[in-house]
Amino acid sequence: MRIDYVTLFPEMFSGPFGASITKRAVDKGILELHYTNFREFSFDKHKHVDDSPFGGGAGMVLKPEPMYRAVRAVLAQTAMYADNRRILIMDPSGQTFTQEKAKELASYEQLVFLCGHYEGFDARIYDLADEAISIGDYVLTGGELPAMVITDAVSRMIPGVLGDEESAPTDSFYEGLLGFPQYTRPRDFEGKQVPDILLSGDHAKIRMWRRQQAILMTQRCRPDLLDKASLTEKEQAFLRIAGNPLQK
Amino acid sequence: MRIDYVTLFPEMFSGPFGASITKRAVDKGILELHYTNFREFSFDKHKHVDDSPFGGGAGMVLKPEPMYRAVRAVLAQTAMYADNRRILIMDPSGQTFTQEKAKELASYEQLVFLCGHYEGFDARIYDLADEAISIGDYVLTGGELPAMVITDAVSRMIPGVLGDEESAPTDSFYEGLLGFPQYTRPRDFEGKQVPDILLSGDHAKIRMWRRQQAILMTQRCRPDLLDKASLTEKEQAFLRIAGNPLQK
Repeated sequence: MRIDYVTLFPEMFSGPFGASITKRAVDKGILELHYTNFREFSFDKHKHVDDSPFGGGAGMVLKPEPMYRAVRAVLAQTAMYADNRRILIMDPSGQTFTQEKAKELASYEQLVFLCGHYEGFDARIYDLADEAISIGDYVLTGGELPAMVITDAVSRMIPGVLGDEESAPTDSFYEGLLGFPQYTRPRDFEGKQVPDILLSGDHAKIRMWRRQQAILMTQRCRPDLLDKASLTEKEQAFLRIAGNPLQK
Repeated sequence: MRIDYVTLFPEMFSGPFGASITKRAVDKGILELHYTNFREFSFDKHKHVDDSPFGGGAGMVLKPEPMYRAVRAVLAQTAMYADNRRILIMDPSGQTFTQEKAKELASYEQLVFLCGHYEGFDARIYDLADEAISIGDYVLTGGELPAMVITDAVSRMIPGVLGDEESAPTDSFYEGLLGFPQYTRPRDFEGKQVPDILLSGDHAKIRMWRRQQAILMTQRCRPDLLDKASLTEKEQAFLRIAGNPLQK
């Protein structure tokens, strides 16, 4: 898979990618990252990429030409991926990114991220993209951090990147539930004990306890997720009893 | 405001913060950033910070001692902030971060971010934090990118960081709505025209058009936000007509 970032700040990316799963994917030859600074596609003397908004108002707006030229250059250079690529514009009004979306994006051969910075895009720039994506309901300086977040989540979903032993059954959002609590040594840390069951050696019971803990945690912290999780009838009964504080 | 990051990878942060609003806040002396590597608080010979999970299973779990020692060292050094600080653990099972949360966090004098990496935290580490925060429903390599995202969003909300002229009325999520479309030169870009109204010079009409566009955009892309947005009766009537594709 190849990922292209069209951004004014390529230098932002190296630090975060240096200590992430993305680096492992690159080192294994599974992922290739390319950066294109769209300022180089501004043809005016001062390399401007923005201008005042029509209709007045604060801030500056990213001009269409440099971004169009940059994206067209990237697409022309990577024509071999034309049948299986996705062009994503990072924007708070986009579809909210989720783990399911990460899996979907991991199936493309090329992703192209369009990152704005400081100011908004000229509305005509949106026509370049297949879709607009937001990582959450908050406002950020630019699209670079969102592109890194999405890259990290997508990298983990590309076959061959995570080792078999890690492949994600303890991850949060696996089967629509939050993760279960994990413990390691020491057994007693300042009076806080590891639950006995984890020391029991009874793996069937441990598996059940973990699943129940994940269900309870999800009910307590993110009840909105429970609707989508597929609980067995037994688990639903467990939740009605154990999950109801009045019955404890 | 002071922000402390307790992390195994302090070097991840410099790139993203170098080109963000956070840098401006630091340059203005409004924000101070400090990094603490909790590996330095591991007292075993090999500086291990993780160990296998009790009860079996894949992956490693971050041990309680290094993180407890690191956080206690940070808190002891910054005792002057004790009355007005917030300790945040980055975790997918936490409360989902929003623009409102960014405003709330901007009111503290100190934030302390606990960042895990690769594996989960020992469950006892959660007791160190005031709250667990997630930036969205997806799994990432570590807590560093989420800490950067939150820092960026919070920085913009600290009084004095954004200039007056920028202070956010065109931002998405302002008044609970997505942003309106922006346009800059050229008026005609490859046949795509700037809407006439933005060239009209009639500022009252432009203001109304922008607000209507924001409402329509929100209805089209994120109808879930509309319930919380406070629309006037006139705007609700407009939405019933213009927002209904059957009536167009």
